[in-house]
Amino acid sequence: MKKYAFGVDIGGTTVKLGLFDKEGNVLEKWEIPTVKDNGGERILPDVADSIKEMMAAKGITEDDVEGVGVGVPGPVDAQGNVQKAVNLGWGVFNIPEVMGSYINVPVKAGNDANVAAYGEMWQGGGKGCSNMVAVTLGTGVGGGIIIGGQILTGATGAGGEIGHIHIEDNETDVCGCQNRGCLEQYASATGVVRLATRRLAKDDAPSILRSGDVSAKTVFDAVKAGDTVAIEIAEQFGEYLGKGLAAVAAVVNPEMFVIGGGVSKAGEILFDYIRPAYEKYVFHGCRSAKLALAILGNDAGIFGAAALVLCE
Amino acid sequence: MKKYAFGVDIGGTTVKLGLFDKEGNVLEKWEIPTVKDNGGERILPDVADSIKEMMAAKGITEDDVEGVGVGVPGPVDAQGNVQKAVNLGWGVFNIPEVMGSYINVPVKAGNDANVAAYGEMWQGGGKGCSNMVAVTLGTGVGGGIIIGGQILTGATGAGGEIGHIHIEDNETDVCGCQNRGCLEQYASATGVVRLATRRLAKDDAPSILRSGDVSAKTVFDAVKAGDTVAIEIAEQFGEYLGKGLAAVAAVVNPEMFVIGGGVSKAGEILFDYIRPAYEKYVFHGCRSAKLALAILGNDAGIFGAAALVLCE
Repeated sequence: MKKYAFGVDIGGTTVKLGLFDKEGNVLEKWEIPTVKDNGGERILPDVADSIKEMMAAKGITEDDVEGVGVGVPGPVDAQGNVQKAVNLGWGVFNIPEVMGSYINVPVKAGNDANVAAYGEMWQGGGKGCSNMVAVTLGTGVGGGIIIGGQILTGATGAGGEIGHIHIEDNETDVCGCQNRGCLEQYASATGVVRLATRRLAKDDAPSILRSGDVSAKTVFDAVKAGDTVAIEIAEQFGEYLGKGLAAVAAVVNPEMFVIGGGVSKAGEILFDYIRPAYEKYVFHGCRSAKLALAILGNDAGIFGAAALVLCE
Repeated sequence: MKKYAFGVDIGGTTVKLGLFDKEGNVLEKWEIPTVKDNGGERILPDVADSIKEMMAAKGITEDDVEGVGVGVPGPVDAQGNVQKAVNLGWGVFNIPEVMGSYINVPVKAGNDANVAAYGEMWQGGGKGCSNMVAVTLGTGVGGGIIIGGQILTGATGAGGEIGHIHIEDNETDVCGCQNRGCLEQYASATGVVRLATRRLAKDDAPSILRSGDVSAKTVFDAVKAGDTVAIEIAEQFGEYLGKGLAAVAAVVNPEMFVIGGGVSKAGEILFDYIRPAYEKYVFHGCRSAKLALAILGNDAGIFGAAALVLCE
């Protein structure tokens, strides 16, 4: 094992980069803009240049580097082939191969949600756990599944797309995936707003939420303040998410769910609403799965990307 | 790799055994009774004696045997620890360790449904496929998940318990697992009878099913004969199972579902009812998963058990 590795998390606006030692400490963290012109052709050479600049500044040679791990917002198969990353303008190509033409160290790649899950397993909320599911409650609901310490990529890179488990037959709104009734429509930040808007429209029950903006944050702040309408919304959120996680558990039987993303900033109070529904719907053999909060936040991606080369 | 392996499938009434060559051909198949007295203490020594008799008869020495694989009706973790097998009277112990005291070759063990899935991947309906889900529609609904050519055991041996995904909020009957609304309550042989009984009680619409016994077989025979009531029942069955498999797909993104068990004897006509619901509910990235029939029948267990020692 060489001394260093780089973790790269490519987003639609910025690329996050990290220099790690082999023990998993982040030594440097920085960002560069994501240049999406011409089908995103500059992204990988820009990343390579930026890494080479950092190596020069630190006196690190290629012989000191175990490799570069790259997380990408799109499906990536086990060989590192990306199958279109629409937010970057990318088509279909092999990331290690293309990246390898710009920098002479081993390259590995994975889907960003899966890679972030791997980061949480390596140095985050799931540390020490080799069977876990990371659940990201952000604009959407993402998932990353780790089985036996390995990322579950799936046949076409769609492993862990748990936000699109069908959970509600009576939905009229269309999900981003074009289906109706996906878990994401209720358990994401926008999903919490959907539940809140509908609840508030149902009657005139008094609530803090009737004054000011409604967001996942204001809903859970109101829950903490004892607002009964907000508590009803949180119960609905918990019912959907607990039911969804119970379905996931019946499939992969994880030791732990690690909950991250913007909604998770509400903290452990979420578990008060998720846990009862989870226990109601889950197969008894999976009941003991722990719930934990993600702790790496926006750094999960660079940690997981570095872990791709340091741990796999 | 040595020349031979034995595959053992322990059931509540009989133990099935098979002698395999390393290419995956079954050379001999036989059964012995399962003696469950005194907490099933005779089962493993009986199996070892029976294997040793076969070896003596065939002139096979321990040096010729790669190992013995054992499938067990209960949760078995990755180290071969069984966590109670109620149908055998077994408590908690390590199968390779105990079996190894009776026979001097390597021993591996797994849950019977998972092991049967492994058999279907090795020499059955999923041959050549390394990401697949075997679905057994029998008295209950069992599942076995293979990811990257490996059995997904899960944290407590409950991986692939897809029959207990919650699929129906309005169920009053209790499932064998004590929950209500599990997939198994609609997609198993007894589930099909449940759907049929309820449909027949709803009105007086004429149906072949009103004369004689109602079973999964008579329902699908009636479907093949164009019976409109039976077709409605098949549509309901397909709606539940397609929705359940869509949830599984959003988690593990398999290349293929291999459908076995008694209900699957109806044949590919099942897919006419499962496929539309699957495509309606599944995440688009998982839509291309194939449906195939299991082909090893009751031999899947011995094949998969042999594969545990020959392929893992």
